[in-house]
Amino acid sequence: MTREITFREEVRPADAEAVREIVAATGFFHPPEVDVAVELVTERLGRGEASGYHFVFADDGERLVGYTAYGPIACTAHSFDLYWIAVHPDQQGRGLGRRLMVETERLIARAGGARVYVETSGRDLYAPTRSFYEHHGYRAEAVLEDFYDRGDAKVVFVKVVG
Amino acid sequence: MTREITFREEVRPADAEAVREIVAATGFFHPPEVDVAVELVTERLGRGEASGYHFVFADDGERLVGYTAYGPIACTAHSFDLYWIAVHPDQQGRGLGRRLMVETERLIARAGGARVYVETSGRDLYAPTRSFYEHHGYRAEAVLEDFYDRGDAKVVFVKVVG
Repeated sequence: MTREITFREEVRPADAEAVREIVAATGFFHPPEVDVAVELVTERLGRGEASGYHFVFADDGERLVGYTAYGPIACTAHSFDLYWIAVHPDQQGRGLGRRLMVETERLIARAGGARVYVETSGRDLYAPTRSFYEHHGYRAEAVLEDFYDRGDAKVVFVKVVG
Repeated sequence: MTREITFREEVRPADAEAVREIVAATGFFHPPEVDVAVELVTERLGRGEASGYHFVFADDGERLVGYTAYGPIACTAHSFDLYWIAVHPDQQGRGLGRRLMVETERLIARAGGARVYVETSGRDLYAPTRSFYEHHGYRAEAVLEDFYDRGDAKVVFVKVVG
């Protein structure tokens, strides 16, 4: 059965644990990275918009099935970071990632953003992630060798929006 | 008269305003950037080492004359950010910047750090800053065009230490 997906920007206390579940379930992130993903939600719950963290949550009427976290980069005129995008494994392959990207970029452009940055690993495990970004108009602008660890580079993608 | 300079890692409440003075006095930073520099000090005072912010303060026996702020980059094995380095204008040209860099890199290496990243603007105003980093063994590894603003790129330098 396919449920209808709805998007919301409002952050709820239950989102912290729901984000933990989704991010951990993807299998792409180490436990400290999962903690960081959850921290963004709790920071936002505690400090509101002053946290600098914004979200697009995708619900299927029963539970959270995907989300993005993004925000303006301090001391820049119109650059935004896309911190996280994650879709629950049992919801992947249905275009939800694409819809989350489109909605997030729309909100960034509406907030005056012009450039969206997203960072990921250069490891083989992340080849599908990099392809996903390239497929959605992101361009690898920089590679920082050995950034995450020896042999594990950081690749910085950018897309001009708005 | 040349006073003797001493370095310390301990952070004191008075450092917040002293950092504001030094960073503003350099003339290299916009007010929101000055605020960010001060925030790092107040975050550290409030949250301790959990803030992730570490400092090297240079005192001349009477006042703060320069400092660096640095810290480990979350979710990396041994990468550190050098967030700030600033020397009071009336103390520049005496090698204090160099001494601050050397001391900071020593502490990073001692803490297990292997790569130090520092970011600055590609604008002409920052040519001396970029030369300073290059002179001290940093290499421009990436350039993100229009990152800070249109025509204002971010240049990411890296140095392998330890």
